[in-house]
Amino acid sequence: MTRSHIVIVGAGFGGLSAATHLAGADVDVTVIDRRNYHLFQPLLYQVATAGLSPAQIASPIRAILRRAANVRVILGKVTSVDNRRRTVIVEGGTLEEREIAYDYLVLATGARHSYFGRDEWEGVAPGLKKIDDATGIRRRILTAFETAEAAQSAESRRQFLTFVVIGGGPTGVEMAGAIAELARVALRHDFRNIDPREARVVLVEAGPRLLAAFSPRLSEAARQSLEKLGVEVRLGARVSQCDAEGVMIGTERLRSATIIWGAGVAASSAARWLGAEKDRNGRVMVGPDLSLPSHPEIFCIGDTAHALHTDGKPLPGLAPVAKQQGAYVAKVLCARIAGRAAPKPFHYRGWGTMATIGRRAAVADFGWVKIDGTLAWLLWGLVHVSFLIGFRNRIVVMLDWLWSYVTFQSGARLITGPGSH
Amino acid sequence: MTRSHIVIVGAGFGGLSAATHLAGADVDVTVIDRRNYHLFQPLLYQVATAGLSPAQIASPIRAILRRAANVRVILGKVTSVDNRRRTVIVEGGTLEEREIAYDYLVLATGARHSYFGRDEWEGVAPGLKKIDDATGIRRRILTAFETAEAAQSAESRRQFLTFVVIGGGPTGVEMAGAIAELARVALRHDFRNIDPREARVVLVEAGPRLLAAFSPRLSEAARQSLEKLGVEVRLGARVSQCDAEGVMIGTERLRSATIIWGAGVAASSAARWLGAEKDRNGRVMVGPDLSLPSHPEIFCIGDTAHALHTDGKPLPGLAPVAKQQGAYVAKVLCARIAGRAAPKPFHYRGWGTMATIGRRAAVADFGWVKIDGTLAWLLWGLVHVSFLIGFRNRIVVMLDWLWSYVTFQSGARLITGPGSH
Repeated sequence: MTRSHIVIVGAGFGGLSAATHLAGADVDVTVIDRRNYHLFQPLLYQVATAGLSPAQIASPIRAILRRAANVRVILGKVTSVDNRRRTVIVEGGTLEEREIAYDYLVLATGARHSYFGRDEWEGVAPGLKKIDDATGIRRRILTAFETAEAAQSAESRRQFLTFVVIGGGPTGVEMAGAIAELARVALRHDFRNIDPREARVVLVEAGPRLLAAFSPRLSEAARQSLEKLGVEVRLGARVSQCDAEGVMIGTERLRSATIIWGAGVAASSAARWLGAEKDRNGRVMVGPDLSLPSHPEIFCIGDTAHALHTDGKPLPGLAPVAKQQGAYVAKVLCARIAGRAAPKPFHYRGWGTMATIGRRAAVADFGWVKIDGTLAWLLWGLVHVSFLIGFRNRIVVMLDWLWSYVTFQSGARLITGPGSH
Repeated sequence: MTRSHIVIVGAGFGGLSAATHLAGADVDVTVIDRRNYHLFQPLLYQVATAGLSPAQIASPIRAILRRAANVRVILGKVTSVDNRRRTVIVEGGTLEEREIAYDYLVLATGARHSYFGRDEWEGVAPGLKKIDDATGIRRRILTAFETAEAAQSAESRRQFLTFVVIGGGPTGVEMAGAIAELARVALRHDFRNIDPREARVVLVEAGPRLLAAFSPRLSEAARQSLEKLGVEVRLGARVSQCDAEGVMIGTERLRSATIIWGAGVAASSAARWLGAEKDRNGRVMVGPDLSLPSHPEIFCIGDTAHALHTDGKPLPGLAPVAKQQGAYVAKVLCARIAGRAAPKPFHYRGWGTMATIGRRAAVADFGWVKIDGTLAWLLWGLVHVSFLIGFRNRIVVMLDWLWSYVTFQSGARLITGPGSH
């Protein structure tokens, strides 16, 4: 009898968790990803704001799985799934198109930005999902200060020193706080014609408060911390236009050379590949064991899946959800292949959520206790470093943070990539 | 009386040394560079071979000079010099063209690759001068292993596992050694269809020995160390053709998907800007005080200058030469502006040259003593780390090296940038 072949698409938190939990099991596993590394997305905003280097928050997928002899890794882009013939179509890294057959399929393809139908905004208001997004945003931010330094008119200087962050979720809050700190702390003595501390950072949120997933008290604490850093928080403000000159908030024109999008995410194309039922964010509706009702051999996890919490609400798009789902699906698969009884329906054990704002400012919501300030900030650092993959990355990131904290400098202020000569 | 204005073009080793030696002097200094960072070029090959991250070998120019109140920094590209009106023309970072007047001009614009008139080779055989070159070469090397893993035929697999490095100078030797180590050590357990240790690394040198600037004994030691690592060293071999399929060495076809150019450098455009006399590598002929005979207010240093050693031979394009020349020009300028006697002609104090090959293999030539092996390798590490700019960079690079040495892993194996999805 040949062994069952499990194909996992995507090596984010969900896919990687499924793969590591299947390592050593009596199955063959193939992990397919468009990139050769697993990215620790929660720290990506620190790459975008020149605090960390890409390699500090990314590890090669092959290196993570190199001891798992039953797992192979393919670098390639999945373009479709044929769920009748049970194959996925992969555009190879550089080679010809290939078809890979599966017995079981786990789709963990994550999410991308959503511009709510205004895709033309992407060019002027980039979002933050990939490493190249982050180095691109870093280039924009640092170049804006350089251009302001060289500007001939006060008006142009003001435009290049105005940074607009759209969306008051964790990404938006963290980006706004980090840009304000970069300007006020790390860049403070670097220029001669401008004072970087005059930089204006505007955080725009359409809803009535920041961090809607947190308790109202912590939303308010986050707002106060941001304002202490000099960030202008605009609540209940809807962006009606984005272009090279800036944004329109309602009917107000805000001139800005640097706009960052942290507002919306949409699931990847998995629902389209499967022809499956999806929610309005494009996430595939899955059953209590995270498989498709119509195709029990196909599972969706993480940001790809619309799964329900015990309270009947859909689970949020968080790393711990994806990781627990990956581990759960591995358990379901092992049971099913071994002919054992199926485990109980998936149940998410949430420990809480956190967001950081700046030096000694963060919020943490554990349900039973809600904290902010220095303690939340220390906890945030501890948790994020302890989840970073790779022993070396942890040490290096901790040293970098310590160094930044002590010297008020930030480590990776490089303008690289296209257009930087 | 207004203060003299000194314009320094280029913030490499030479320009930065001139600027730091003019910090605090009774002059105004403007440093112009196309990039916002100073790059520690001797370690760039480690970025190209996934050992280090860009930010570990680059520091923002503004941060280095932030305490020098009489020095300002401009991010921009110099396109020409008007030596009659004493101005340089700068294409601003993102702004309109500007003209900047100088009393004294220091050109430290470095060198770029030379393809000996075969510029069409650049696309298939990239050279290594900039950070984007290095991350591009890293992408090519890592993608070649990925493609070999996915290849359908033995022939194609062989082509993607063949790496050709052209030029047996320090860059070529270091690249060939580092690629061989990456394949044999760090990637060893990462693949399922290929054995990375079967990778073929060919180092092609037209001359009769490697590292022509070193003693013949060390050239031979380098060759032996490389061969022990599995590198094929081809001496007296001339590349007659480079294309997407590989190279021609004389009349022999060598199929390879990854070609790296380390053969030739040529000075930047400074000689053309000045309409000055130049040598066949494009370096400006300067007098004993490094100024132009026809324009004593213009100085050229580093790879931009053809200056003579005490033995009448031109000085080599090394970091210590550029640094000493920068410091010397600062001294000449201060003396001249203060009306003091000119210092003695420039005299280069060379301590020696080094090149590294791999784990515990390097060569060091100090003239009076020539060493190779583990001792040379330790010395090489010590010297390179001690010259790295920034306290943090030193610690982080040392930790990274230590970690790689102990674990046999390398730290920055990311495929990023255009074409990596």
